Amino acid sequence: MPETNTSEHDLSELTTPEVEAILDAEDAALDERGSLTSDFVYQVRERIGEDDADGVLDLVEDLKPADVADLIEQLGEEDTKSFIRLVGAELPAGALAELEDGARDTVIDALTTEQLAEAVTELDTDEAAFVLEDMTQEDRDEVLAEMPIADRLAVRAALEYGEETAGRIMQRDVFAAPGYWNVGQIIDRLRSAERLPETFYDVYVVDPTYKIIGLVPLSRFVKAKRDTKIENLIEDEPVIIDAGMDQEEVAYLFEKYNLISAPVIDEGRRLVGMITVDDVVEIVHSEADEDMLALAGINDDNSINVPIRKVARSRFVWLLVNLGTAILASVVIGIFDGTIEQMVALAILMPIVASMGGNAGTQTMTVAVRNLSTRTLTAATAVRAVYKETAVSALNGVAFAVLMGAAAALWYLLLAGQSAADAWALGGVLAAAMIINMLCAGLAGILIPLALDRAGQDPAVSSAVFVTTVTDIVGFSAFLGLAAVFLVG
Amino acid sequence: MPETNTSEHDLSELTTPEVEAILDAEDAALDERGSLTSDFVYQVRERIGEDDADGVLDLVEDLKPADVADLIEQLGEEDTKSFIRLVGAELPAGALAELEDGARDTVIDALTTEQLAEAVTELDTDEAAFVLEDMTQEDRDEVLAEMPIADRLAVRAALEYGEETAGRIMQRDVFAAPGYWNVGQIIDRLRSAERLPETFYDVYVVDPTYKIIGLVPLSRFVKAKRDTKIENLIEDEPVIIDAGMDQEEVAYLFEKYNLISAPVIDEGRRLVGMITVDDVVEIVHSEADEDMLALAGINDDNSINVPIRKVARSRFVWLLVNLGTAILASVVIGIFDGTIEQMVALAILMPIVASMGGNAGTQTMTVAVRNLSTRTLTAATAVRAVYKETAVSALNGVAFAVLMGAAAALWYLLLAGQSAADAWALGGVLAAAMIINMLCAGLAGILIPLALDRAGQDPAVSSAVFVTTVTDIVGFSAFLGLAAVFLVG
Repeated sequence: MPETNTSEHDLSELTTPEVEAILDAEDAALDERGSLTSDFVYQVRERIGEDDADGVLDLVEDLKPADVADLIEQLGEEDTKSFIRLVGAELPAGALAELEDGARDTVIDALTTEQLAEAVTELDTDEAAFVLEDMTQEDRDEVLAEMPIADRLAVRAALEYGEETAGRIMQRDVFAAPGYWNVGQIIDRLRSAERLPETFYDVYVVDPTYKIIGLVPLSRFVKAKRDTKIENLIEDEPVIIDAGMDQEEVAYLFEKYNLISAPVIDEGRRLVGMITVDDVVEIVHSEADEDMLALAGINDDNSINVPIRKVARSRFVWLLVNLGTAILASVVIGIFDGTIEQMVALAILMPIVASMGGNAGTQTMTVAVRNLSTRTLTAATAVRAVYKETAVSALNGVAFAVLMGAAAALWYLLLAGQSAADAWALGGVLAAAMIINMLCAGLAGILIPLALDRAGQDPAVSSAVFVTTVTDIVGFSAFLGLAAVFLVG
Repeated sequence: MPETNTSEHDLSELTTPEVEAILDAEDAALDERGSLTSDFVYQVRERIGEDDADGVLDLVEDLKPADVADLIEQLGEEDTKSFIRLVGAELPAGALAELEDGARDTVIDALTTEQLAEAVTELDTDEAAFVLEDMTQEDRDEVLAEMPIADRLAVRAALEYGEETAGRIMQRDVFAAPGYWNVGQIIDRLRSAERLPETFYDVYVVDPTYKIIGLVPLSRFVKAKRDTKIENLIEDEPVIIDAGMDQEEVAYLFEKYNLISAPVIDEGRRLVGMITVDDVVEIVHSEADEDMLALAGINDDNSINVPIRKVARSRFVWLLVNLGTAILASVVIGIFDGTIEQMVALAILMPIVASMGGNAGTQTMTVAVRNLSTRTLTAATAVRAVYKETAVSALNGVAFAVLMGAAAALWYLLLAGQSAADAWALGGVLAAAMIINMLCAGLAGILIPLALDRAGQDPAVSSAVFVTTVTDIVGFSAFLGLAAVFLVG
């Protein structure tokens, strides 16, 4: 068979399945990495432009809900509105739960109250609460009024729990069995029961007061004989979640103990719901992303479907705080304006000292924030961590001081034609300032996140501005101050 | 009942369960957030210091493996060695798989080959491969030689797949059933089969050539009647993973489609293993952490148990690259030394322009890196994203130009006693430079990560240095250049 490539192949030479494979690949909505192809998005856009409802439905009907959500996120506001108008009630409910906030707002606005109520009813309680939580009270009540009473009550109950708590992300349908039942009885019950969760991974074993005794993974359950008592299949102490627990804590426990599902209990320690790992994966991801964005001064949703004004406003605040820091640094430089006037070389070299300190501080701080969030930086390890970061800063501080001090001295000796004594004095001052600043950078990089964490603040949100303030001010004042004493005098 | 607090309570007034609860809480290894208390770590350390093997075992015997791993990570190198010497063969095998790299190296060194082989044999294949993958070929062979033949072969086979591929993280024991079997037959088989995975979440349904037809979640399986054919319980198209797929892709698919387990196939499309969500949660977390650390110039493991020299060396490289950038910026300033000599105010204000650009660029870049990794920034949305970031930068650029231009002008007018014309000219130059730099910062912040991603590079690793270079050079040259033309001349 001759070499074929997808752009020019003689279909007549190929067998039917080969032809199909090629045609499939050319039409595929997803690339080999599982992302939507831009060709596909383009095709959808084109049909939206032609107001071709059937054409759009044709393209999206085989997509999984998560892919429909991805598609919508890529369409942009105008096309999303038209897309919803064309697709209407055919929008898979699951896609609503998968959308990012910005895009979901657009979709919710574009759906009629009836369509939205219908979609929300199809979702699990936790997903429904998630979709409705950002709406105004009034809009939410309208949607709830259109829902069947049982679902309405379940969603209302979920919304009673605070945002980002276990109660909000749990599912309320749980399958629990008393400890004295045997496997056969439970299987028979499962086969006939009606209001069961669609998917579950463990049989929750409870006592007569509906308190959790233990968990039996389904894989252990199906391997057991019919006459085995379920309580005899319990192996480990179960990890149990309080309904009021913060979702970040929940994610921490799931990750630490490799949980698939965990029972949720109320204040009376009675079983009220279950959290499954699929909800947790998203929390793990978004919490880690939040830290990364917060370190860069982004504390609001900045995803691609949030309006420009809102994004600009959310970033303005951080830039304003940074302006304060920069002005402070300028004031420090201003103190030494006489010194700079006598030796312009100082103005040329001073950004190097500040920048190296800033970078060393950012490295240390990022590691500290990360270790605080994975809880390897704790009260028990704090002293060791501070010692270690100080040592690392000292080592690199000396290394760069030698490197840069020598380079500056040689530059001024050879290229600027200064006297050897002057050039080496300048190099020495630069080197000393560099060591001082990198050492302070390391200390600030670890002590500031530690202090913020101890004070109950999120270290990711405000560490960066404090660390930069320290490295700028120490950098400029150490370098210019030493220069004023030793070089200019 | 009078108010009680845990430090001073009259035990005689309380009922037995209340007393027990208080005593439990005082002894607890874990705090209410599920982390080890420093008191507990301290107690363990004390007994290690006293060489009290029984005392140490007493304390740790009730801990879950993940908590033992946390404990070891907090002990530090010396105490870890003593801990392993005292605990020896009693170390729960699971803890090995949960340790961070630095601490695991210490533990592996401290265990005898026999102890290590025994522990590794207890682990799942994927965990065993994970523990052994960083050892030298020779050490690894020694450990493998001590293992039972079946486990040895399984681990060897896992190690054949590249690091961070699906083949490496998959489990090789899978439960699969032919499509024509019914539920009753499968249950009977499960109850009698021997080499079953310890935990599984789906029945994999295969054709006679061992190709995957579909998945049946156990919760659907246990609800079905005995005479139902398993293939009739398949609902969705299964998500299937190639053994060679990168683990980051695997995590993406799990997160996108809310998977709990997925079958892994070889090049012949035959079922060879399964990946479960608990492995994926850790990948999701570590990939997000990697991005965050990479943006700060940390590309190696910097966790608390990595030696100081190694950490210092890994950070040195990034600082050296940054030094290059800083020197480049200095060269730019050096071009304008004559200008600065005539007007020292420029040296005082120039860091503000560079710093605001740097921060605006970092904001944009971090959002871009994050959106690339969540795949919402794609070929289909790139143009919209660039437009949006440019607009955001322009808005904030103008806002800060007005703010800072006016502030600088007033300062020089009122405090430094300059003429009105000179002060406003300076403010105007500062404002113009600020707009230029923040606009360039926004463009660089989005275009550089996009370009790196298009070129197949990880945008998290090298974007920051390019963006800072742009904002420093544009910032200094725009401000000093405009000043040279309009202010000094």
